[in-house]
Amino acid sequence: MNKVFVDVGISLDGFLGGPNRGPHNPIGDGGLEIHKWMFAQKAFLQHLHLDASHGESNNKDNDIIEEIFQRIGANIMGRRMFDEGEANWPEDAPFGTPVFVLTHHLREPWERKGGTTFYFVNEDIHGVLEKAKQAAGNKDVRISGGASTIQQYVNAGLVDELQIHFAPILLGNGIRLFDNFEKGRFYIEPERVINSSRVTHIQYRVVKP
Amino acid sequence: MNKVFVDVGISLDGFLGGPNRGPHNPIGDGGLEIHKWMFAQKAFLQHLHLDASHGESNNKDNDIIEEIFQRIGANIMGRRMFDEGEANWPEDAPFGTPVFVLTHHLREPWERKGGTTFYFVNEDIHGVLEKAKQAAGNKDVRISGGASTIQQYVNAGLVDELQIHFAPILLGNGIRLFDNFEKGRFYIEPERVINSSRVTHIQYRVVKP
Repeated sequence: MNKVFVDVGISLDGFLGGPNRGPHNPIGDGGLEIHKWMFAQKAFLQHLHLDASHGESNNKDNDIIEEIFQRIGANIMGRRMFDEGEANWPEDAPFGTPVFVLTHHLREPWERKGGTTFYFVNEDIHGVLEKAKQAAGNKDVRISGGASTIQQYVNAGLVDELQIHFAPILLGNGIRLFDNFEKGRFYIEPERVINSSRVTHIQYRVVKP
Repeated sequence: MNKVFVDVGISLDGFLGGPNRGPHNPIGDGGLEIHKWMFAQKAFLQHLHLDASHGESNNKDNDIIEEIFQRIGANIMGRRMFDEGEANWPEDAPFGTPVFVLTHHLREPWERKGGTTFYFVNEDIHGVLEKAKQAAGNKDVRISGGASTIQQYVNAGLVDELQIHFAPILLGNGIRLFDNFEKGRFYIEPERVINSSRVTHIQYRVVKP
């Protein structure tokens, strides 16, 4: 059965993006720092079809990136994350799977090079998840973001796992990942922790009472 | 040379205490959950002179508690943390070292059973640190808290290490550890990560540019 998981990088002080976000500043001021560890890794550069010749491999950060890309059969994202991404993704969008966009603004599926097709779905989060599961086959469904989409899926008890990459930086301001998580609706257990000098990856299992 | 370190437990969403804190509710609503992992460990119960017969040992959480208690030669705390603690600590206060309290309200040193003596110091944070270092001998100085005292010492570039215990809980509200950290004044590097099913311990080295 497909697992549903969140996979997100945050600053040590809990922000997944900096302030002043928008299509011209997709991760907000300072937000790119959260993902700096990825840009050093061969697996990530290859996935983005960037020059990977100086990328590092044979390390734990690279292994995690490969592991995560391989398990994703479909992505789900909110409308705002899509709008910010649309203005910035290369023609060869960095997903390589079907991507289901939660939106009231319907449009035709948008097929990109490299296996990414965006589907625009005006249904509740359960309906969108069903579509994503079907598309994922025997792979997993990643709730990509942004914060509000992640919060909705977690609070509805639909997420099995949180994979959080803690960057050792402080943003001080921006959008907090955990702000609207409803405590008491579920609990979490750290299941696996992997560390490098660049980032700490903690995988939590979400347990529903 | 003495290291100066912070050693603090926080919730996954970044709170070191819950809301409604005060002498009758020292860690705030729900805040005790942050430290639940400690209460299961023999080293902690023994240190508090509580019944340790059911305490766990031979595990990584217990080892970390022992390691930390052994390295502390003196503690520094803010006035508010002292006031909250004074109303709640047993006669045999749980420090076993000199404790320097930052305060404008001078009083005589307050000696407790078991090696804890509180000294009330009306000096700036540098002056208090010098006193604590002298008292610590060749051991380390722990900045105990609360949030504002930790923030002052970190922002002044006086802290070498942050030892953070991430509890897998969400508080949703309360006092945030990182709120007034001044980013750009220092950077941090994860140095050691130890994990159990109860808590994730991340030790950061603080690097001053």
